[in-house]
Amino acid sequence: MALSKLAEFEPIFFPKTHAVIGASNVMSKFGGRFIRTQMNFGYKGTFYPVNKDEPEIFGMKAYPKVTDIPEPVDFATILVPSPVVPQVLEECLAKGVKGAQIITAGFSERDEEGIRLEKQIAETAKKGIRVIGPNCFGIYCPRGGLTIPPGEMLSKESGPVACISQSGGYGIRIPSRADGLGIRYSKLVSYGNAVDVNECDLLEYFYEDPETKIITGYIEGVKDGPRFFELLKKVCKVKPVILWKGGLTEGGARAVKSHTASLSGQAQVWDALFKQTGVVPVNNLDELIDVTMAFLKLPPITGRKFCVVGGGGGIGVAAADACEKAGIPLSVFPKELQQKLLGIVPAQGASVRNPVDVGSPGPPPPMLKLVMDAVFTSTDIDGLIISEINMASRPPMIDIAAPQVGPSPNQLAPFEAQEKYRKPVIMVLPVESNGSAFAEAETARRRASDWFMEHRLPVFLTLERAAISLSKFIGYWEKRNS
Amino acid sequence: MALSKLAEFEPIFFPKTHAVIGASNVMSKFGGRFIRTQMNFGYKGTFYPVNKDEPEIFGMKAYPKVTDIPEPVDFATILVPSPVVPQVLEECLAKGVKGAQIITAGFSERDEEGIRLEKQIAETAKKGIRVIGPNCFGIYCPRGGLTIPPGEMLSKESGPVACISQSGGYGIRIPSRADGLGIRYSKLVSYGNAVDVNECDLLEYFYEDPETKIITGYIEGVKDGPRFFELLKKVCKVKPVILWKGGLTEGGARAVKSHTASLSGQAQVWDALFKQTGVVPVNNLDELIDVTMAFLKLPPITGRKFCVVGGGGGIGVAAADACEKAGIPLSVFPKELQQKLLGIVPAQGASVRNPVDVGSPGPPPPMLKLVMDAVFTSTDIDGLIISEINMASRPPMIDIAAPQVGPSPNQLAPFEAQEKYRKPVIMVLPVESNGSAFAEAETARRRASDWFMEHRLPVFLTLERAAISLSKFIGYWEKRNS
Repeated sequence: MALSKLAEFEPIFFPKTHAVIGASNVMSKFGGRFIRTQMNFGYKGTFYPVNKDEPEIFGMKAYPKVTDIPEPVDFATILVPSPVVPQVLEECLAKGVKGAQIITAGFSERDEEGIRLEKQIAETAKKGIRVIGPNCFGIYCPRGGLTIPPGEMLSKESGPVACISQSGGYGIRIPSRADGLGIRYSKLVSYGNAVDVNECDLLEYFYEDPETKIITGYIEGVKDGPRFFELLKKVCKVKPVILWKGGLTEGGARAVKSHTASLSGQAQVWDALFKQTGVVPVNNLDELIDVTMAFLKLPPITGRKFCVVGGGGGIGVAAADACEKAGIPLSVFPKELQQKLLGIVPAQGASVRNPVDVGSPGPPPPMLKLVMDAVFTSTDIDGLIISEINMASRPPMIDIAAPQVGPSPNQLAPFEAQEKYRKPVIMVLPVESNGSAFAEAETARRRASDWFMEHRLPVFLTLERAAISLSKFIGYWEKRNS
Repeated sequence: MALSKLAEFEPIFFPKTHAVIGASNVMSKFGGRFIRTQMNFGYKGTFYPVNKDEPEIFGMKAYPKVTDIPEPVDFATILVPSPVVPQVLEECLAKGVKGAQIITAGFSERDEEGIRLEKQIAETAKKGIRVIGPNCFGIYCPRGGLTIPPGEMLSKESGPVACISQSGGYGIRIPSRADGLGIRYSKLVSYGNAVDVNECDLLEYFYEDPETKIITGYIEGVKDGPRFFELLKKVCKVKPVILWKGGLTEGGARAVKSHTASLSGQAQVWDALFKQTGVVPVNNLDELIDVTMAFLKLPPITGRKFCVVGGGGGIGVAAADACEKAGIPLSVFPKELQQKLLGIVPAQGASVRNPVDVGSPGPPPPMLKLVMDAVFTSTDIDGLIISEINMASRPPMIDIAAPQVGPSPNQLAPFEAQEKYRKPVIMVLPVESNGSAFAEAETARRRASDWFMEHRLPVFLTLERAAISLSKFIGYWEKRNS
């Protein structure tokens, strides 16, 4: 009887015992840093360092071979040089280890010899041990106490987002960039050359995983196209799948070959696959994070009738351009609402047709609240975007992000409107100034941004990024509900 | 004899005497804030507050009318309500004021009455006073001691970049965002409804202006298409003109009408105009700043043969995709160079075909230097992009941005290579983590970024933004040199 994916991966994501093969006392070596990183991250199980020369590692007894360990071993991390990996993996199999991650690189992505070694690994895996990698950063699973080699500082909190990354670099960059935005992961797997565990196995696992509500990923190629296609069709009906496919240009495909030895495939094929399965495709790291944010914070909506409230007329023009380009054309408000808004916004120089211009750089309270009340009570709008109203900037701009006892009226208004009208309100809070001289202003902006995100309002850095993310988010629900 | 534009605008950008009509002692009023803002910014000439009710403003004698001022007046700022503006402007004309900026809004962008008032202003202007606005933020000119109403904190340093902005909001947002990046302005003019001084007059001025080397702008519409076209053809041959045209979608065009009452025009027409004249078109605020940065820091180049050195294989894939999409396809290195690089980069898992993978998250010194030496001495490459090598991040990443006595080897390497090989080196330093919890890491990143920019290396936040900016930059020089 085949195990469910949940049962099969339980000892891999939540190992009670963890052998580190190639562990070392020398911190400058990968095997020294790795075990230290896991200890600092807070692994609660038992480590078994394996090293044929060193009898003790960081105060723990070390074993020459994994087969010398007296207790059962759930999981192994393999850090030894590539020529030794097949032998070590055979020993893991003999020991009854359930799963192993091979961090070591230098396999099929490198040369003929690497291809040969990788085939041996595949043979061993088939005999009864699940293998992640080689040429990868492996697993980050906060609840299991596991983190990827450069991920010592990643959040120890679990969350509803899963991530698969064929790249190790993005395996650390994705959660790093997401961390401060409050995006939390159930599991992240950097799976490299995917000799055994591949994108399909992980999709199946995350489909079953009750901890995971949103599946994200960076992929370069797939091992089994038809299985991937059928799986995605099934998974996307239940959980959103947000994928960034690298290597869709000629040069990108060549780089993929050098990186994870994957076949990249043609852009049109991938485009069709995403459309037919309901995957939400994204084009870069920022978009991956942005769209994840949208799925985390927004209620399911299928309507595209949005209103933009912006700090200045030019902002309104840019808003209308950005929304229309992204597939959310702004429609003109009814005359009565326009009349009502004219009584609220600044007397001169303000647009009220949609976008609504509350004046640059921002409105004196309670203008923002009154505008939102008018819009939500007079239209059947699906949601509202508040764009580039200065919330953390220099005097004499309105500074709602300054450290203060409680949130300011302008800060409360979007939150209260969202609660009262049960319609999403989306914030655009751009970085106003770059350079270290303006670090304080940026910290204030981030403080405002954090507050909004803690109060269920998604925050984006530019209006274009907000509009694109929103459109992709709505597109998923349109398809799922159709 | 017509004055040269330089002579004509001298009393406007560098007024010795400045009447503020509608000045007030009440700081909560626009007329109170405005005069304070100019004083704090450091205006060195003489203010003449004009107010019919208050005899003294901020300790200065105030005059009921501009014609009551006993001395000659170079320049006037008009802040009175729109119905009074035509009369006040007539008085300025009678007084012999050379130029006036009308900050007040509520003209042709608003209603029929506004259109009528604006026509009166146009009539007065024709009789011999240059008028900026109405419905604008006016002039920011550090050397003249003038700043726009919300621009008290803008840099007091002059620089080679000019900016025209039809929007007041972008009139403050553009220099705010540029400030911390060391981008300095000769003059910035927010000119709103352009009843008299329009984009063409300003282009003519900046064409002549020896202080201005690069012309940038945000425009919504033009008053005189044929003149604009001919002018741009002339100007672009001598100085780069970087323009963001707002309102190129249907909704955007509608927003333009509400904002500055301009006719926005069709996207295809603008596209053709930019192509035929050699304007560098940009699509948003970030791109405007990015491309300005490219023109400020890079030497004129027309070659598109670039190399990317990245921190990780996935970064390389993204780099190849982004460069190819932007029109800078990466070509494969000759075999000998690949061999040489294999001896330098990490032994396993590294690509050397271009992009070059120096390992994630970053290389131990002197690897980066050795890679650059090999690439620059073995190829006729036009320049090099260093992408997402962690320079300011958390341990155990390489932290070259931490406060230290001098720059680190990895920081010095790109600078020294640029100096030695006389080829541009472009840095991509992404924001690694958002949220206020990571404010310190961001400050460190900004410190590294500042250092590179001070050493003539342009810095971009993402590889895509770098590639797009670079491609637009090269495109300008290709056209100019053809």
